[in-house]
Formats: sequence, structure tokens, C-alpha cells
Amino acid sequence: MIANRGEIAVRIIRACREMGIATVAVYSEADRESLHVRLADEAYCIGPTASKDSYLNLTNIMSVATLTGCDAIHPGYGFLAENADFAEICESCNIAFIGPSPEAISKMGDKSVAKQTMKEADVPVIPGSDGLVEDVDEAVRIAREIGYPVIIKATAGGGGKGIRIVENEEELIQQMTAARQEAEKAFGNAGIYLEKYLTGMKHVEVQIMADKHGNVVHLFERDCSIQRRRQKLVEEAPCPVMTDKLRERMGQAAVRAARAVNYSGAGTLEFLLGPDGNFYFMEMNTRIQVEHPVTEMITNVDLIREMIAVAEGRPLSFRQEDIAINGWSIECRINAEDPDRNFMPSAGQIQFYLPPGGPGVRVDSGAYPGYVISPHYDSMIAKLIVWGPTREEAIARMKRALGEFAVDGIRTTIPFHMKLMNHPKFREGRFDIKFLEEHDLDELPDEGEIVPDR
Amino acid sequence: MIANRGEIAVRIIRACREMGIATVAVYSEADRESLHVRLADEAYCIGPTASKDSYLNLTNIMSVATLTGCDAIHPGYGFLAENADFAEICESCNIAFIGPSPEAISKMGDKSVAKQTMKEADVPVIPGSDGLVEDVDEAVRIAREIGYPVIIKATAGGGGKGIRIVENEEELIQQMTAARQEAEKAFGNAGIYLEKYLTGMKHVEVQIMADKHGNVVHLFERDCSIQRRRQKLVEEAPCPVMTDKLRERMGQAAVRAARAVNYSGAGTLEFLLGPDGNFYFMEMNTRIQVEHPVTEMITNVDLIREMIAVAEGRPLSFRQEDIAINGWSIECRINAEDPDRNFMPSAGQIQFYLPPGGPGVRVDSGAYPGYVISPHYDSMIAKLIVWGPTREEAIARMKRALGEFAVDGIRTTIPFHMKLMNHPKFREGRFDIKFLEEHDLDELPDEGEIVPDR
Repeated sequence: MIANRGEIAVRIIRACREMGIATVAVYSEADRESLHVRLADEAYCIGPTASKDSYLNLTNIMSVATLTGCDAIHPGYGFLAENADFAEICESCNIAFIGPSPEAISKMGDKSVAKQTMKEADVPVIPGSDGLVEDVDEAVRIAREIGYPVIIKATAGGGGKGIRIVENEEELIQQMTAARQEAEKAFGNAGIYLEKYLTGMKHVEVQIMADKHGNVVHLFERDCSIQRRRQKLVEEAPCPVMTDKLRERMGQAAVRAARAVNYSGAGTLEFLLGPDGNFYFMEMNTRIQVEHPVTEMITNVDLIREMIAVAEGRPLSFRQEDIAINGWSIECRINAEDPDRNFMPSAGQIQFYLPPGGPGVRVDSGAYPGYVISPHYDSMIAKLIVWGPTREEAIARMKRALGEFAVDGIRTTIPFHMKLMNHPKFREGRFDIKFLEEHDLDELPDEGEIVPDR
Repeated sequence: MIANRGEIAVRIIRACREMGIATVAVYSEADRESLHVRLADEAYCIGPTASKDSYLNLTNIMSVATLTGCDAIHPGYGFLAENADFAEICESCNIAFIGPSPEAISKMGDKSVAKQTMKEADVPVIPGSDGLVEDVDEAVRIAREIGYPVIIKATAGGGGKGIRIVENEEELIQQMTAARQEAEKAFGNAGIYLEKYLTGMKHVEVQIMADKHGNVVHLFERDCSIQRRRQKLVEEAPCPVMTDKLRERMGQAAVRAARAVNYSGAGTLEFLLGPDGNFYFMEMNTRIQVEHPVTEMITNVDLIREMIAVAEGRPLSFRQEDIAINGWSIECRINAEDPDRNFMPSAGQIQFYLPPGGPGVRVDSGAYPGYVISPHYDSMIAKLIVWGPTREEAIARMKRALGEFAVDGIRTTIPFHMKLMNHPKFREGRFDIKFLEEHDLDELPDEGEIVPDR
């Protein structure tokens, strides 16, 4: 069973079909006409449009799984993918959860526990409090030690939620109580901790894959620094500022991190990488990620297939020394949003749809001509992934592919991506997580006009 | 300028766009709404629907090329691609012909000259007459020498046209005069020659790439034995029965062949490969071929890009030792034909169109939702190409991709390909050029039902 929707449900069905595994799709009322429903061998409605009533509806999902005789559930990303209870319920129903153990999910899901675990595994973490901060005095003492600016984080937060940046002691004292109250309200957990606020950082993450026999392999890094409001928009592999030595160090740290929680399946260690070459653990995503295809493109490993094989109890199909980087891959998230109107969601019916093709182009999508994009779920309608022998050729190919991607009837972020691909600093690889805050893309051409790439 | 239409025109425009080269498309009146017209920077009508009035109209093509200031013409395949006069006219107009010299085209275009040239270059040829056969007595003498069955071929023929197979001396004597008359009538050249008729043969061809500085590299082989009436339907790389030693021998022979005619650009040496491991030169295609993507998929070389670079006078971007085989690739030609009605052409409007996507899938096509397939040109509407780490995984992926390829409004060969992918002999790699004559696919399931592939 695929307990998800959209492109990732399609992606998982594709892997199953190639493995000769029959699939059961589930869908909300709004998703009746979705591609994942059409492509699966069986499909069942699990509730109304609202996610909490359908894709988060544990009872209905488990009912379908047991009644149809599913032997495994792939949770995709989002929804129930990092819900330890769900993994546990699957286990108790004798249905394999395609992902790590509930214990590993729990440990990595609690930010302060995760940080402590990483410190013990000798994985560099962002300087900050040793676990939760109990009162203002302790906060002040720690902030003096690590230096301002300092970031206040809710231990139960994530994805940019529940954080405050303070520039000095006065602000820190002011914000501490508010931060705690907000965390209690938003996450039902008032626990907060402090971290040094770092600048000029890249978001560099390491893909790992582990089996149930103690094998852990890393599959190099992805650079996901192009973010808008902490949402990734473009990802690439490898990272343009990476060195062999640093890659080895980050890869080893990721493997140690995975071992520390007895990890199995696909996982991602997210790091901040500074201009000085120091990197710090941010969090571990205990699931497949949106941007996994760029890793697949440069390593020729099918990560979804491997996840399923691991859940079946098989050993990894490769050792560390079998994995090498071949060429360059970039992914653009094509969202149903209007980049000219502050990325406002643009739901509605796709009138004309023609994804790009040809060499080195991959499209992972649930869209089709006539598909109606619901305003109720996330706005990503397609992932456009390219491969090229070099970064320069990958960018040229991405521009070519963006230029021929036809989506009529709604607004998309395609013109935004074209502008980004034309940006000199992006082309040089010189960008950090603040890039989109600090650079105005509106001045750049968005048409695929001919820019000599040689 | 791209002096072609359909998917290959789109393929060339894509390469140009990635190289930062502006493109001029040409089109017949029937092709006004074609994708290659939409994707090119400029597009001009060169005449009415009939190919002879448009895509073969040298005067109109050269007029557009000179008036728009084109500095090179890519001829694609078919139409003018192997027309030495066209290559010469381009040269005389100071427009680079993206292909070999007129001399190389001429030498390889005349079958008996080509055969003689190959013999001198120590490339094995099919046992037969030493050039043209002048009279019946000579034919009888040669046939006794090489043994029956024997094939009578028109020197100006090709692609299965102008050939007769004779089983014994009586038939040979009967057919000689008729063959000569037919050749005179069909090709304006009565020259015929004899060859031993071989059985159990595979069509195995070697891709070569040469520059104008004397570098010739082969890019391994393709198996194109799945043919219907001598039209290729499925191609793969590498060939499932190949050995390293044989590959080396065939590759070396292909390089010698190219050197023998001072070849430059992309070319293909077509061989018959026998069950005994002996191979024989059939012909050289002095152009890019329909099936070039399978070679691109296993070598990561962009052949169209390389052709353009060679025409610009650049040396090859790789040496022989840089090229290695990575995984397996299969191409299915998706034709607008009805496999249930003897592959009858099925022109008309495509109502719904959704090509497959996801990992390891490439689609090269000029089709789109609403596209009207003209009955006036060849019936191929898309090339579906997959890559997998092994042949087994490539077949599984092809089945998955065929199963999700949606083309409504016309009939296509998709169900035929699904049946073929399910055929035990195809799956085992045990097929020769007579496979489709000798095996009935109608008994096989055409749906993408779940067959365990592991």
C-alpha cells in the first residue's frame, strides 16, 4: 500500500510495478481522479478531502491495508511518514512499515534528543544549549558562551516553525517566555533550546541507506540551499562547493549518525555547511525525501526500490565502494504558484500539459492534461530533474527543459526557475540559504533565450 | 537549420538549445502545428505536404538556409540525410553539412562499392559476388561456390527493397533477368549482385563517431534484430549475446571501416551476426539513426551534440578508453499503427496524451495532446527508451513505462511491445531477425499484468 498521494505515490507505484509487486492506492474524495489512483492495481477512498480525515486517518488506512491483505506500507513523505505511532501500528498488524523502526523515528523526531544522540556519535552539532533550556538565566549564560545572534527553537518544531532569532541579550530575555508559550500552544510541548545563529550557510544533506543487517552506506550529498521561507525549491547533487575530503567527512558523519539509532531504510542527514568548511547537524529526515531523484541520477541507484528491498529483509544491493558520482543532477520543484504574485497558490484545471522529454530529462509528476489541482494539498505538481556530465551542461539542459515544459490553465513556478538558472551567482554555485531573500530575480530574463553555455 | 521533421527535428533542436545555438525549423504545409515548429527559434514553410515538394525540396531548403543566415544544416535521418548532392550543395554554399563528406556518403551509398571498400579494409563481408554480376553463367558459378540459398540484391536498393532469395539453381536462372529489370525500373540502375543467404542472424550494428582530425571511436553495439518487414521495431544496447572479445573485434572492424572512407561525424556499421560468432558487413548508415538513444543511455555521450561539435571542427570530446558500457537500454518505436490489424497505419488526432515518466525513462517524440498525425509521413510518433542496471530491470521498466503510456484517439503499437516484452525468448535474448516472422505474439498477454521480475 502507498499511504500517500501525488507524485511520490506515483513514484512508489512505478518502483513496485518494476519489482513485480501489486499495489494498493488510497485517496481522499478530492483525489478520486488522481494519477496514483489510475496507476495502482487497486485503489480505495479513505475519507474526505481534509488530510486529517483521509491521508492522516490511521484507522481508515489500516482498515484498507488489512482488508486488502497488504504486506507492506510505504508512507512516502509528509503525512504519516515520520509518525512513530503509525510505524508501530503497522508492526503490530504484521504489516511491514517501509522505513526505520519506531524508535529511530522517535529519537530523530525530538530535536533535543536527536542533537544529544548526534553529539554522542561524534557528529558535529550547532553550538548551543545542552538539551532544553529551563529558564532565562540559563539562556543568557549559554548565549554569552556561544555568542550572538542566537536562535530559540521549539524542540517539537521543525520545517522552519517555532523559531526566533535574537540579536542581543535584551531581545533574548524578551523572547524567551513568548517562545515557550507559543511552543506549548502550537506543538503541545513547551520545551525550547538555544543555538548559535550561523550565516553564509549552505543546506547540504547526505543521503544514507541502511539495511537490517548492519550495513550503512552514504550516497553523497545534495545541495538544497535554494529555499524560499525554508521551503526547498531547487536541489542538486553533488554540491558545487564540495571537496573530496569534506565529502568523505560528511559521509562518515552521516553513517555514524545512522548507526547511532540503529537506522534502516532511506534517511537523510541535514547539515548546515559554513564557508569555512565546518558543518553542523540540523536534523535527520527518517523517510524518503522529495529531492531523492538527484541522488538517483548521479549514482544510478533506485532508492525506492532499495527501501522496499530493505523492508523485505534483504541486504543492501551495494557496498560503499560500489557507489560513485557520475555527472551532475538538478531538480526544480514545479509548483502551482504564481511567482509574479508572491508565489500565491494557483489551483485549478490544467488545460494543456506537455512535460519535456529527450536526453537527460526526468519528470516525476502526478499531473496530466485535464487534471484539477486541489487547493487542499501542497502545491507541487511536478519535479523536473535533469542530468548532465557537468554542472554547466545540467543547467543548460534544465533551461532547455523548462523552456519546453507546457502547463496551461494555471500559473506555475517555471518562469521563476528559468530566472534562477540565468542568475550569475547560481551559475557559479555561490549561494547560501539566504540567497532568495537577498537576491532579486525579477531583473533577470525568464525566457529561455539563447545564452551561450560554452 | 534542421532539414527534417518529427521527433528527430525535436531531438536536434533540444541539443542546439543546450549548446546555445539558435535554430531554424522547416516544415511542410501539413506540419504547420508540429512540435519542432513550436520549439525552434524560427520556422519556415518549404512547400506542400508531399515530401518531394517539401522535405526533399533542395531549392526551398537551401533558400531558407541562405536567407536566414544558417551556418550549418542537420539533416536528421531519412529525407536528404544520405544524399551526397545535398551535402555537396551545402558545402558550395558555405554551409556546414552536419554529417560526413559527400565522398563518404557516395561510397557507402553504392552497395557494391561499399562492399569492395570494406573487403579492402579487412572488414568481413557476406560471401558473394565480387561486385556486380554480369550474366546468368557468372551467377550460377558464384552460387555454386558460396552455396544456396543465395540472395540477389540490387546495388542501388536498400532497406529491404530490391532483393530476392533463391533456393536453387533453377530459381536463380529464372529470377536473374527479372531482378535486373526490376532494379532498372525501381532505382534507374540495373546493377545486381549475389550474396550467401544466412540464417539465424542477428542485426547487430556498431555506432562510430569520428572527427575531422583523424580520431575515430566506436561506441559499442546495438541489437536491432526485432524487425517486421525489415523495419526495426525494438533496439537495445548492448546486444544480449555479445562477448567482450567479439565486441572488441566488431568495434575494431567498424573503426577500420570508418577510416577507409575518411569518415567524420556519427555513423553506423550494420552487421549480420551469426550464431557461430561470425559477423558480416551489411551496410553503413552515414547519418544519425533512429535508435541512437540506446547508445546514449549506456555511454552517457550525447551523439547529436557531438555531431554538431565535429561539424564545427572540434576534436571528439572523448577517446576510446573514456567510453564504457553502463547498464542496459531498450528502445520501443511507438508507431501510429494498429497491431491487431496487421500494423495498418492509424492516422488522426491524438485526444489524450501522457507519456510515461519517472526514473530511467526517456521519451523522444513530436507528439502532444491534440496533435494530428498525418498519413503522409512515417508512422513513428514516439520513441520510448528506458535504462536499467541490468537487461532484466530494463525490460521490467519498459513494461512499466508501456503500461502508463496513454495515447487516445489513434491506435498504437504499445500493446505489441507489451506482448514482446512478455515473450520468453525475447526475455532470454534468444531472437534473430526472423523472430517476428516465426513467433506469434497474439497468444501473449498485452496488459502490464504483474509478472515477478526477480
